[in-house]
Amino acid sequence: MGKLKSHSIILAGGSGTRLWPLSREEYPKQFSNLSGSDSLLQTTYKRILHHFGEENISVVVGEKHKFEVNRHLREINIDKGEMIIAEPLARNTAPAILYGTLKLLSEVDDALVFVFPADHVIEDLDSFESAIMNANLLAQDDYIVTFGIKPHFPETGYGYIEGGSLINDNSYSINKFIEKPDEEKANEYMSKGNYFWNGGIFAFKASTIIKQFEIHAPEILEILSGTENMDEQTYSKLPNISFDYAIMEKTDRGAVLPVSFKWSDVGSWKSVFDFLPKENNNNVLEGDIIAKNSKNCLIKGDRRLIVVNGLSDIAVVDTDDAVLISHIDHSSNVKSIVNELKEKGRQESITHNIVNKPWGYYINLNEDHGYKVKKIVVNPGSKLSLQKHEHRSEHWIISKGTAKVINGEDTVIVKEKGAVFIPQQNVHRVENIGDTPLHIIEVQFGDVLEEGDIVRLEDDYGRMSK
Amino acid sequence: MGKLKSHSIILAGGSGTRLWPLSREEYPKQFSNLSGSDSLLQTTYKRILHHFGEENISVVVGEKHKFEVNRHLREINIDKGEMIIAEPLARNTAPAILYGTLKLLSEVDDALVFVFPADHVIEDLDSFESAIMNANLLAQDDYIVTFGIKPHFPETGYGYIEGGSLINDNSYSINKFIEKPDEEKANEYMSKGNYFWNGGIFAFKASTIIKQFEIHAPEILEILSGTENMDEQTYSKLPNISFDYAIMEKTDRGAVLPVSFKWSDVGSWKSVFDFLPKENNNNVLEGDIIAKNSKNCLIKGDRRLIVVNGLSDIAVVDTDDAVLISHIDHSSNVKSIVNELKEKGRQESITHNIVNKPWGYYINLNEDHGYKVKKIVVNPGSKLSLQKHEHRSEHWIISKGTAKVINGEDTVIVKEKGAVFIPQQNVHRVENIGDTPLHIIEVQFGDVLEEGDIVRLEDDYGRMSK
Repeated sequence: MGKLKSHSIILAGGSGTRLWPLSREEYPKQFSNLSGSDSLLQTTYKRILHHFGEENISVVVGEKHKFEVNRHLREINIDKGEMIIAEPLARNTAPAILYGTLKLLSEVDDALVFVFPADHVIEDLDSFESAIMNANLLAQDDYIVTFGIKPHFPETGYGYIEGGSLINDNSYSINKFIEKPDEEKANEYMSKGNYFWNGGIFAFKASTIIKQFEIHAPEILEILSGTENMDEQTYSKLPNISFDYAIMEKTDRGAVLPVSFKWSDVGSWKSVFDFLPKENNNNVLEGDIIAKNSKNCLIKGDRRLIVVNGLSDIAVVDTDDAVLISHIDHSSNVKSIVNELKEKGRQESITHNIVNKPWGYYINLNEDHGYKVKKIVVNPGSKLSLQKHEHRSEHWIISKGTAKVINGEDTVIVKEKGAVFIPQQNVHRVENIGDTPLHIIEVQFGDVLEEGDIVRLEDDYGRMSK
Repeated sequence: MGKLKSHSIILAGGSGTRLWPLSREEYPKQFSNLSGSDSLLQTTYKRILHHFGEENISVVVGEKHKFEVNRHLREINIDKGEMIIAEPLARNTAPAILYGTLKLLSEVDDALVFVFPADHVIEDLDSFESAIMNANLLAQDDYIVTFGIKPHFPETGYGYIEGGSLINDNSYSINKFIEKPDEEKANEYMSKGNYFWNGGIFAFKASTIIKQFEIHAPEILEILSGTENMDEQTYSKLPNISFDYAIMEKTDRGAVLPVSFKWSDVGSWKSVFDFLPKENNNNVLEGDIIAKNSKNCLIKGDRRLIVVNGLSDIAVVDTDDAVLISHIDHSSNVKSIVNELKEKGRQESITHNIVNKPWGYYINLNEDHGYKVKKIVVNPGSKLSLQKHEHRSEHWIISKGTAKVINGEDTVIVKEKGAVFIPQQNVHRVENIGDTPLHIIEVQFGDVLEEGDIVRLEDDYGRMSK
């Protein structure tokens, strides 16, 4: 059998709120930048790019976040287009991994498939590289390889994998998967050599995994094999089940490959703090920060000045519309706090004040009784949805770039410093016909509800609405 | 001798930065609201209003803050007009008190004068009332009365006054003024009955104080007696000296009146916390706050959501452009931190993102390369300075109210939802001719420096520029 080509699937689904207020329900942590300017998705992509090559990397993501993935990849000069596989609904990893694999098999007979979560962090790329090599060999022999991260400390927040008999000099069969342990157990696992953190990274032969789904989860295989392009209704029939639970815990082909690189699922601000490099006083300081007599703090600024004084073991995360200040050891409570916010219907739990769109983004600048001010930024070549408002009129001031504006019967070109008024009832749209971002200051009158009384003639993707 | 009329002088000068970021160099703490909606100035005024009556209360303040005092008093339906005495420059309390007294003596032969700082807090108004009565009697007998606050605890942050022999059954002569003591001393003063906090509240007969200035500070009296309306040049000759130092420490007419009401100079966030009422977990929570597992915290929000989790003894003060997070026991460091900010030329140390003007206020909403967005709110009947820009053009969108706009040769009335473009070089001004606040969204192009390239034909007070 000839050597199979290696392909990589990045799982970019899931909506995390554990890093609130940086991550929001509509803006999960894979799209956030924990350090520097790259998002976790961008970092994950760059990490594997030179190994697999752009043409062999696909991304599985929920439909509603497809444009966001596109945006992040464009920022690092990757234009995936068809390589982004959109799930009509959010399901768990088992359907996502199989869906991505089946898409691949519609183009090739077989391949070695690597699966990487988009929202984890990894350091020591040499060790990462050699792990991929070793996983490659195991997968060739029809093993389903899961990366077992050698514990850095007795973490109680992760699931563990117990390795069994040696398969070769650097991998074990899998005895069992273990839920998050208590501290005593975690210390025990540390002391033994065959317990590993479950990193959620997998490698397997496509043909192998199809066989395993046939045996252990035929209903998923049946549904996903059905149609070429999934619709919401079909996808909704899929069970919400993880790959570990559906396959790994049941298969006799499982292998755990111990890896020693630095890894974190950055599932809390504490774990973000633990992973990131510190300055002299053991603080992580990101943004416009002035720190006095403070130590062991994670201070993540946004656009405002943050002054901290006399703090220890505190996490501060600032955003445009919400700020979190938490004892860093209690940062795992954030999840439940955000759930409370959702129950209260607080917008701060759902979206940012900055809202990304397929065509660019907008920022809510100000709202007052009867009017609302937004800054709208449209990417070159992009256009907003064609729409009209029953009760809302709008002023647009072109503060940067050149716009083509449909306003009722008229279509006009508006240059920088120009302005246009959109009366109620007028069908309207703005398009960036320049080659630089188009900036618009919009003042809305009347109905200031976000989506209130909008009649869309096309959606944000330029498709005619049904 | 017939009973003299009582008059009150509120000292509203001084630029405090110890309550940064709420207070700024250009926005001292007397203009801030520590709790509820009233500023300290408004609270101070209301506290004495029913006792002295509006016609017998004057306010001494620096020229640049005269409009701000007016604004705060208008908000509580007081229109002082001539009763606001503007110092051309900031000097210390000795010149301010004498200047206010001389203004008074230009209208009456003599009076009983009470002096109250605008930026302190007081509780227990009955006790405050009776203290005024007692001070009144002492002042009638030519004493210069200073209120001595009975220490609530061994505070090391205040100056103390040592009482001497009894003048009557409720007041002492003054042995000496004592600088901020160490903890041991402070405890000693607590245990004795004749040591008091120096509250900076005074009462005296106008004629008495003039005599005392003749004796102890004739140069101040001479300069201030010179001209009816002070100019900057004359005022700059005055020494920067406190009333305590110039008069109280030297005079033989001094008396200290022990008072038992709750008082604080709110000179640090710690002292603000100590003074304000607490909720069940001993937190002070102001604004849109969600507090979990937190105690002994002062959380002061602005317009954003603040979530605190697992905090103890922390002060959080949020504003539009800066946030402070400090261990509450170290909050006295804020002063030095703000001084550093000033040295770095940080705007956050000088002004707020919301800038008050004689005609209303504006908020900086957004700034980007080449343009700047402001929200301008003009009070009914007010107008901005008549001006023109060499290199800046502006769009104005009238988002609320009705504006009269001078734009080059034209004068136009612009109603709500209307817009007007001000080209470079055009002399322009906007005036609120309605009886509700006028809201304008301004987009500036070209020079986006705050006061860059403005040519003012009139100043903010509508006076022709020299």
